[in-house]
Amino acid sequence: MSDLELKCVNTIRAVSADQPQAANSGHPGAPMGCAPMAFLLWTEFMNYSSKDAKWIARDRFVLSNGHACALQYTMLHLTGYKIGVEDLKKFRQLGSITPGHPESFLTDGVEVCTGPLGQGICNAVGMAIAERHLAATFNTDDHKIFDNFTYVICGDGCLQEGVSGEACSLAGHLGLGKMIVLYDDNDITIDGPTSHSFSEDVNKRYEAYGWHVQTVDDVSKDLGDLRAAIKAAQAETNKPSIIKIKTAIGYGSPSKQGSEKAHGAPLGAEDLAGAKKFFGLPEDKSFFVPEDVQKFFTKAAEKADKKRVEWDANFAKYTAANPEKAAELSRRIAHKMPDGVFDKLPSFTIGKDKDLASRKHSENCLNAMCPLLPEMVGGSADLTPSNNTRFKGASDFQKATPEGRYLRFGVREHGMAAVCNGIFAYGALRPFCATFLTFVGYCVGAIRLSALSKSGVIYIMTHDSIGLGEDGPTHQPIETMESLRCMPNIMVFRPADSNEMAAAYKVALSKSTTPSVICASRQTLKSLKLSTIEKASTGAYVAVEAKDPKLVLVATGSEVGICVEAAAKLTADGVPTQVVTMPCQELFLEQTQEYQKSVLPGNVPTLSVEAASPSGWHRFSHAQIAMNSFGASGPGGEVMAHFGFTTDNVVEKGKALTDFYKDGTVPDLSNRPVFETVGGH
Amino acid sequence: MSDLELKCVNTIRAVSADQPQAANSGHPGAPMGCAPMAFLLWTEFMNYSSKDAKWIARDRFVLSNGHACALQYTMLHLTGYKIGVEDLKKFRQLGSITPGHPESFLTDGVEVCTGPLGQGICNAVGMAIAERHLAATFNTDDHKIFDNFTYVICGDGCLQEGVSGEACSLAGHLGLGKMIVLYDDNDITIDGPTSHSFSEDVNKRYEAYGWHVQTVDDVSKDLGDLRAAIKAAQAETNKPSIIKIKTAIGYGSPSKQGSEKAHGAPLGAEDLAGAKKFFGLPEDKSFFVPEDVQKFFTKAAEKADKKRVEWDANFAKYTAANPEKAAELSRRIAHKMPDGVFDKLPSFTIGKDKDLASRKHSENCLNAMCPLLPEMVGGSADLTPSNNTRFKGASDFQKATPEGRYLRFGVREHGMAAVCNGIFAYGALRPFCATFLTFVGYCVGAIRLSALSKSGVIYIMTHDSIGLGEDGPTHQPIETMESLRCMPNIMVFRPADSNEMAAAYKVALSKSTTPSVICASRQTLKSLKLSTIEKASTGAYVAVEAKDPKLVLVATGSEVGICVEAAAKLTADGVPTQVVTMPCQELFLEQTQEYQKSVLPGNVPTLSVEAASPSGWHRFSHAQIAMNSFGASGPGGEVMAHFGFTTDNVVEKGKALTDFYKDGTVPDLSNRPVFETVGGH
Repeated sequence: MSDLELKCVNTIRAVSADQPQAANSGHPGAPMGCAPMAFLLWTEFMNYSSKDAKWIARDRFVLSNGHACALQYTMLHLTGYKIGVEDLKKFRQLGSITPGHPESFLTDGVEVCTGPLGQGICNAVGMAIAERHLAATFNTDDHKIFDNFTYVICGDGCLQEGVSGEACSLAGHLGLGKMIVLYDDNDITIDGPTSHSFSEDVNKRYEAYGWHVQTVDDVSKDLGDLRAAIKAAQAETNKPSIIKIKTAIGYGSPSKQGSEKAHGAPLGAEDLAGAKKFFGLPEDKSFFVPEDVQKFFTKAAEKADKKRVEWDANFAKYTAANPEKAAELSRRIAHKMPDGVFDKLPSFTIGKDKDLASRKHSENCLNAMCPLLPEMVGGSADLTPSNNTRFKGASDFQKATPEGRYLRFGVREHGMAAVCNGIFAYGALRPFCATFLTFVGYCVGAIRLSALSKSGVIYIMTHDSIGLGEDGPTHQPIETMESLRCMPNIMVFRPADSNEMAAAYKVALSKSTTPSVICASRQTLKSLKLSTIEKASTGAYVAVEAKDPKLVLVATGSEVGICVEAAAKLTADGVPTQVVTMPCQELFLEQTQEYQKSVLPGNVPTLSVEAASPSGWHRFSHAQIAMNSFGASGPGGEVMAHFGFTTDNVVEKGKALTDFYKDGTVPDLSNRPVFETVGGH
Repeated sequence: MSDLELKCVNTIRAVSADQPQAANSGHPGAPMGCAPMAFLLWTEFMNYSSKDAKWIARDRFVLSNGHACALQYTMLHLTGYKIGVEDLKKFRQLGSITPGHPESFLTDGVEVCTGPLGQGICNAVGMAIAERHLAATFNTDDHKIFDNFTYVICGDGCLQEGVSGEACSLAGHLGLGKMIVLYDDNDITIDGPTSHSFSEDVNKRYEAYGWHVQTVDDVSKDLGDLRAAIKAAQAETNKPSIIKIKTAIGYGSPSKQGSEKAHGAPLGAEDLAGAKKFFGLPEDKSFFVPEDVQKFFTKAAEKADKKRVEWDANFAKYTAANPEKAAELSRRIAHKMPDGVFDKLPSFTIGKDKDLASRKHSENCLNAMCPLLPEMVGGSADLTPSNNTRFKGASDFQKATPEGRYLRFGVREHGMAAVCNGIFAYGALRPFCATFLTFVGYCVGAIRLSALSKSGVIYIMTHDSIGLGEDGPTHQPIETMESLRCMPNIMVFRPADSNEMAAAYKVALSKSTTPSVICASRQTLKSLKLSTIEKASTGAYVAVEAKDPKLVLVATGSEVGICVEAAAKLTADGVPTQVVTMPCQELFLEQTQEYQKSVLPGNVPTLSVEAASPSGWHRFSHAQIAMNSFGASGPGGEVMAHFGFTTDNVVEKGKALTDFYKDGTVPDLSNRPVFETVGGH
């Protein structure tokens, strides 16, 4: 490489190592090793605009080894994004835009939240799917609106994680030719040499997935091989590409190059000075960018931005020629729902319409919404006939049919969720995906990132309780709903009937920055007389009214019907009983205290009934009919009865609860202050 | 194959299809396709004893595609295990020993709970690790005590799941030559042809992992190729083996062979009759085993049992020659702790010993226990220096050093947990494993199976809150502890100091049928004056006493120290404050109501303080200082302060809480009945 190129690369290294040094915390090693890759991407290959970071047709870049974020911040700083040197100095400090791992909602130019290994490369698969689908949808013979590459830098860790294997196998199957992964093969993990645990042939594995595979032996002295490899990767449009690049972690560090010691801690003042000396940079300056280096990057950024200017002009022509398509694209990018679309959601009339399993209600909602909302794309982790996710008129998204909106994810739950985060992050699409509720345990790592990164993915999780029956305890969720309810920024719906399901879809689709988990039953549910979409959208409401109730039953999903029957018996037996259905705790907790008290008075004996863990229900109820064990294999009705989810048991326990409080004071559960409102994401 | 062999195989098929037919639920297709594999394993290859199902030196068999369990029940029935024809008739019925997916604790001869795809093959990796380690530990030049194969049958789904990629890459690295996988390559998944989503070259991928790979084209007419392949797999002792076997799902079904329709529903009476006709079996008989077929299997089982008889004799000689080793093995198999071993746990003296991070306390416990409990084997998912799991004197378990007890799992959390379930299932070992607490989200699918299958794995989860600081919200658990607390049969510990940590290890090691998650801090914690191992073993106790308290603070882990300081201020300010430390909710809930009330009176204003989701705390407290958002990147102390985890904020909120109840009645949280005690696993 030229002297100036080397100076640029070394500046990236030094500025990236300065950040953890200033913070006394962080990861200098990977940035120092990967600097040549980032240099080439930002100065020669990527289309981006630091003036318009959200330009829809930009190339996407994902730093899958998110701990190397100092590298990304350095690149964004050098190429004119909104990261000043003051921001670099506040690396990993509270309130900064340069946090310890990349956060998409904090920092311009960061596409996704990475850090948990393996996720970013899966997000990139989703982005490449989105690009291909949107290109098939919006491009015309005259105008290529969508036509970008998705680049990834990742390390050994990302490729060891199973989630990446799932998504990359899918990427190979789909032939996502515009995805290009630069694999930082530095032979080091936190524990030491990769030979401790990782001796597989990664290239051969990716060939097996159907990828285009190349190897570059050294990028420390020459960039020609890597440049040629990226060009070859771009030219291979039928297969995703991975380029295995041999690097040295902590390149340039006198004492830590090639050692795990360079991974997760600052180099220390002396070693950092030594590295700068080796780089030919002033040893005593921090965050130093030589003038010619800055000029080089500024020029590169300007050149990159020209593509955006050209695109804008092209898009203006496109808009003139295709005003409806352009308007539709704008609508989608803004996640704006068309006026009146929710009026088309199915509504239910007791006595007229047939009672169904709530997974069928979910299917009906998909059938109603998907034709009207072409931004909805999704599918199932190989449970299509059980999850009921294949909406009417759906066609598969496959290599030869990128216009298709139905995704065949295969038996890959974690990859599926991570891919959906990538589809959402790309923009202009609302992904949904599905599996059995219990298999949230396979993909909650990615669901968490939906919540953290404000990614409005809709998770359709059927077979939502022991009521699924014969498949038994491995398939029967107990802890799953509570494990999601205690996660920030996610809504968990468990609708009891058609109207509640419609409400779930309405709210989920309306909130594009909050993911939703819609839990649905395998078995048929009885519809509620008093349900409406509007009431269900408050999260909880009275399903059976009682004057001066002596007992309140609160339930969700399939247990509401049991409570309705029990309430009739109890009321007839002299215990006036009110039934509250609570399709979404999160929405209910957003309501006014007055509304909450009108639904759940708190000072009337309250019994919750949910075929799941009691944990979380003590907030709302004095006693619980709940599961404190795993379920069992048997016909669903018998299993429900065995564990006490019957009208008779609810009647019995309801009476026991009113008896329990006959002579004493009912603890008023509404009489409690709420303190937990300190701000965060 | 001979006529009798074919008749045997067809009988397996028919009896396996009879089960879902009788249940009107279940999976006939895979058993019908896989019957030839099972036939060869049980009649020619496996060492097992239906008279002594738990014989420690048996070959292990794992049905990783657990939905095919009718096949396993048929084999166990035919070879004399405790499964009668009445049990087969009760397939998938409540209370039967033939549930919808295999449950190890219900059915003799079932090694592990399978069903969630991908888990079983990982369990097998753990079993093969266990075998190799125990052979290195117990075998002598004169006596081979441990020397068994681990066989797996699995389908496409298991190999699509990322978790299997993680464990199989590790298996290749470790050269687990006695693991043999029979891959049922039937081209069908639930959604339809595998070509929907799965077009990778599986054999090549497994070669890339370092496996010995073979292909068998057809087993429906001839068994010779498969027999030869299994022999070759046995002969290859340096690499695990996978044999890809082309089969037809629902083989023999007139209308459903080769179709996804054979997968998850009974064939139907007509189709089943047609299949039996094709098999040359009486169409009108169910669960029919021809006499010559039964004889054949009985003979095979007797032959297999002879190996056990020989082993018993050999073990008697071994015992005579190595009485200490034999006694040690018996102790380990029984999961009996040596007398007095827990006396060696570190105990802490205030003022004398140094305050440490609780991850250091965990390390001290490992250092104390591991030398005394050689059954403890474990490691970390590439976070050894952060998780502090490498106990003094540890050496790595690697291909060349199978006597090592430290496992380098690589960046493979889900695989790690599933492998540990397999190690535990093998017997005579107590596995532990580690990652950051937030990455429970990567492995909870396998942790759930630890809990369900009563597998006493110890999970050491460090970096347990926002207190970890700079790594930021991707690494800061919020929902994690509650998501585990709401799971049945698992203990979640969050010790506040050294004594509480010792208690966690004591209880975790004592309970071999309940997994434990030990949460530990990155940051230093202040030790408690009143802590003892004994008190901490009750789950919660008074850490700061107050006479006639007006306020109770309840906290865990790093927040207990904050509450201790706050209580001093509050008491000085005229609000006598008691502090309760609650290292384990599950243990506390097992105590008598009287004890519970002595610790948490319930009618005194109670404020919980935990840097995590408030969900679950309403059971114990009137108000919560908790996290209702994700965390943030910054120095740990600053992050804790930002979110309100300071002495001052606890003082302020404590006063606010007592003020809140000044004029009214405090809801008595202890005045509530408990109904959720219906039996299950």
